[in-house]
Amino acid sequence: MAAIGIIGRDGRMGQAIAAAIEGGEHTLAGAVDKGEDVAGLADRSEVLIDFSAPQALESNLHAAVGAGVPLLIGTTGLEEAHHTAIDNAARAVAVLQTGNTSLGVTMLARLVREAAGALAQGWDVEIVEMHHRAKVDAPSGTALLLGEAAASGRGIDLPGHSERGRDGHTGARSEGAIGFASLRGGTVAGEHSVILAGENERIVLSHVAEDRTLFARGALTGAAWLIGKQSGRYSMEDVLGL
Amino acid sequence: MAAIGIIGRDGRMGQAIAAAIEGGEHTLAGAVDKGEDVAGLADRSEVLIDFSAPQALESNLHAAVGAGVPLLIGTTGLEEAHHTAIDNAARAVAVLQTGNTSLGVTMLARLVREAAGALAQGWDVEIVEMHHRAKVDAPSGTALLLGEAAASGRGIDLPGHSERGRDGHTGARSEGAIGFASLRGGTVAGEHSVILAGENERIVLSHVAEDRTLFARGALTGAAWLIGKQSGRYSMEDVLGL
Amino acid sequence: MAAIGIIGRDGRMGQAIAAAIEGGEHTLAGAVDKGEDVAGLADRSEVLIDFSAPQALESNLHAAVGAGVPLLIGTTGLEEAHHTAIDNAARAVAVLQTGNTSLGVTMLARLVREAAGALAQGWDVEIVEMHHRAKVDAPSGTALLLGEAAASGRGIDLPGHSERGRDGHTGARSEGAIGFASLRGGTVAGEHSVILAGENERIVLSHVAEDRTLFARGALTGAAWLIGKQSGRYSMEDVLGL
Amino acid sequence: MAAIGIIGRDGRMGQAIAAAIEGGEHTLAGAVDKGEDVAGLADRSEVLIDFSAPQALESNLHAAVGAGVPLLIGTTGLEEAHHTAIDNAARAVAVLQTGNTSLGVTMLARLVREAAGALAQGWDVEIVEMHHRAKVDAPSGTALLLGEAAASGRGIDLPGHSERGRDGHTGARSEGAIGFASLRGGTVAGEHSVILAGENERIVLSHVAEDRTLFARGALTGAAWLIGKQSGRYSMEDVLGL
Repeated sequence: MAAIGIIGRDGRMGQAIAAAIEGGEHTLAGAVDKGEDVAGLADRSEVLIDFSAPQALESNLHAAVGAGVPLLIGTTGLEEAHHTAIDNAARAVAVLQTGNTSLGVTMLARLVREAAGALAQGWDVEIVEMHHRAKVDAPSGTALLLGEAAASGRGIDLPGHSERGRDGHTGARSEGAIGFASLRGGTVAGEHSVILAGENERIVLSHVAEDRTLFARGALTGAAWLIGKQSGRYSMEDVLGL
Repeated sequence: MAAIGIIGRDGRMGQAIAAAIEGGEHTLAGAVDKGEDVAGLADRSEVLIDFSAPQALESNLHAAVGAGVPLLIGTTGLEEAHHTAIDNAARAVAVLQTGNTSLGVTMLARLVREAAGALAQGWDVEIVEMHHRAKVDAPSGTALLLGEAAASGRGIDLPGHSERGRDGHTGARSEGAIGFASLRGGTVAGEHSVILAGENERIVLSHVAEDRTLFARGALTGAAWLIGKQSGRYSMEDVLGL
Repeated sequence: MAAIGIIGRDGRMGQAIAAAIEGGEHTLAGAVDKGEDVAGLADRSEVLIDFSAPQALESNLHAAVGAGVPLLIGTTGLEEAHHTAIDNAARAVAVLQTGNTSLGVTMLARLVREAAGALAQGWDVEIVEMHHRAKVDAPSGTALLLGEAAASGRGIDLPGHSERGRDGHTGARSEGAIGFASLRGGTVAGEHSVILAGENERIVLSHVAEDRTLFARGALTGAAWLIGKQSGRYSMEDVLGL
Repeated sequence: MAAIGIIGRDGRMGQAIAAAIEGGEHTLAGAVDKGEDVAGLADRSEVLIDFSAPQALESNLHAAVGAGVPLLIGTTGLEEAHHTAIDNAARAVAVLQTGNTSLGVTMLARLVREAAGALAQGWDVEIVEMHHRAKVDAPSGTALLLGEAAASGRGIDLPGHSERGRDGHTGARSEGAIGFASLRGGTVAGEHSVILAGENERIVLSHVAEDRTLFARGALTGAAWLIGKQSGRYSMEDVLGL
């Protein structure tokens, strides 16, 4: 049981994490939003979770270091200067920064990288995802993350090898391409499959989300894992012991 | 055991049907191609299968009627005049015309039409297919046929309701849309899934082809079924007793 | 918007239906349990839903007829005398009795019956289901219902054709068998697939439940549909217009 | 292009490998069966593939060492003495011994071991496979191999944790169990899925065989890979560079 402090209380993820704490094994030490007292929150928390904004990152890191508490950062849109600031703070406390807090997706991305690397000759990679009817962009961020994992396993760049939105006379598949397809409908929380299609055999690596709380629950698991870790920079793969 | 005559011997389907006859329960009465003697073939066949060309259709029908043998027509690209000629011939002999000779796909299309019709309010239809890496067009003809079945079950037109090639900022799904997505890779013979996605539940109706001989084998089944049927126009649904 | 009365308030389904009404388009006219005033509830409801117990059925039917309101019966364990009582009540009011209130499962069962009937020669039927780790019996009731649908489509009896719990040296599959397999794990709400496996092709008909509220929501849809219907006995297939 | 010699010509695998060589990139240096001249075959081969019998293993190893050619051993039923003999021969030539020559299955087993190990707490492992109607045992050998991979990733023994053939009142799933389910029907060449089911999310790792030539083709790939390798004992994972 950990006392968790939330930075970015009013955002979608901040709210989801607070909801996930309720009724679970952890307690909410407190939650702040723009302009509120992060240092005070740090003092009464065993670990902080930050889903606020890039411009708040530096002062959030400062508060964590000041209080000597670890910090999980899920804020997106970070640039090089932010990563430098994180590296600096990680000399004093444990910091986990990630663009994706789901344990299952983290695991899947690892498996995809490995399989796409080992099965590089003659195995085509296709990624298909399905989400609810209200989703407005395609492919999903997680599909792109899995595509990056496949590309990284093969040592190629994803943008230069993507085949997206096939329709009409497409011609034969390009060798080495990574294909994406998106399905939309109903209330699907999120399903992703990475297909490696070879000569008369296929490997299919899938993730099924049964609800949309994965990322909040994963953030809690990661945060609780950080408590007691020595200073340094960590990833979700470390949480899985990979 | 039926003695089957093939019209359009040198085409892809003509060859596949001849190969499917070999080692099976039927015999090849003969096979002709452009300019050869269809009437002679009709005389020594119990049933004819025509996968030649629209411009040959009228004389093929004539030969079938002259010999009093039934005819299965799989030729594509037929226009209204061809259908009138078929109707006329069907007064004298049994004629089955179809754009798709697979029994499994015929069955699936029937189920899709029924389900899409009954689950019309609040159920989104998505169609996803996968084929081998050499396929040059998307979606597959069978995917479009399944889309037509869904549209027909709902009494809407398919072109006006298709969402194809989703990529980038697509916005939310249109109400009543029928979505298509295409995967390509490896040596996949052909897999199709029609997803009906409702409020917290989904129905998925799929067809898996284990090899590419489905259409040839289905044509044989349809042709053998035609023997002894009274004159009239038939469909693959009739072969299934639907 | 319908005013719905619940009989069997304290049971699992009674509670689930009350929860499903909350925040939805219908209102809760009231809810009773053993020994409470059903006639009074009937008077202030537009439709009644009964998930109580077989021994209460007769007086519940009496109350519905007395108030002239339709009744949806989901109570299980009914015997022949109960069905006779239902038939009698159905002369006065609209009554829908069903062992399964999910619209998606009702639809799937219909498709399975049809496909298993049409694809009878040479197509093997297999049914696989997955549920959460706490489920204590196998196969699931819905899997058996789907097996009954397949058997009914083929005009055979299910118990005499079931292959369950394959393990060890099983020998080859019996011709005409209907196979069952059960998976258990995690928090899966319920997934069912009926596979028809033929010569080099397969049809797979699946249902995916994203949460466990399907049956409650389906009961509400069925009950609302009953309002205004003329007296008679109805099924969930009627709700789908099948 | 490699000149490949087959030991065990008349067995099912010997025949399948010879068929796979035909029309491919390799050539058949020769093939022998019981009592024939293995040493002579070794002299004119670049690599040997042995799918004969345990009692022939020692003389086959002797022939390989004598000719200085590498050897792939797929013979099953090996005991400790055989493994010692293999280790001895592997000091002189490259030897790859394996119970499973499919590259895709080898890859999948590796991914399963890794995922089952990392997702050990709260993730249930289920394995489901489907094969053609003539298969006489259940679960398949490959399903058991995948179960072994999962058990090994968790440091548990498989027999003590298997749940097989669920049917009837099974009670809730045992913690840490590895479940197996088998489907049979049609002409399915072989499909395996390993499901890791956690709290509201699942990972599914699957292999689909499109035909039954996987093991023969994998044996060829492994054998060709062995040519030019230094002496030592290798596995199919080495062929994949894992």
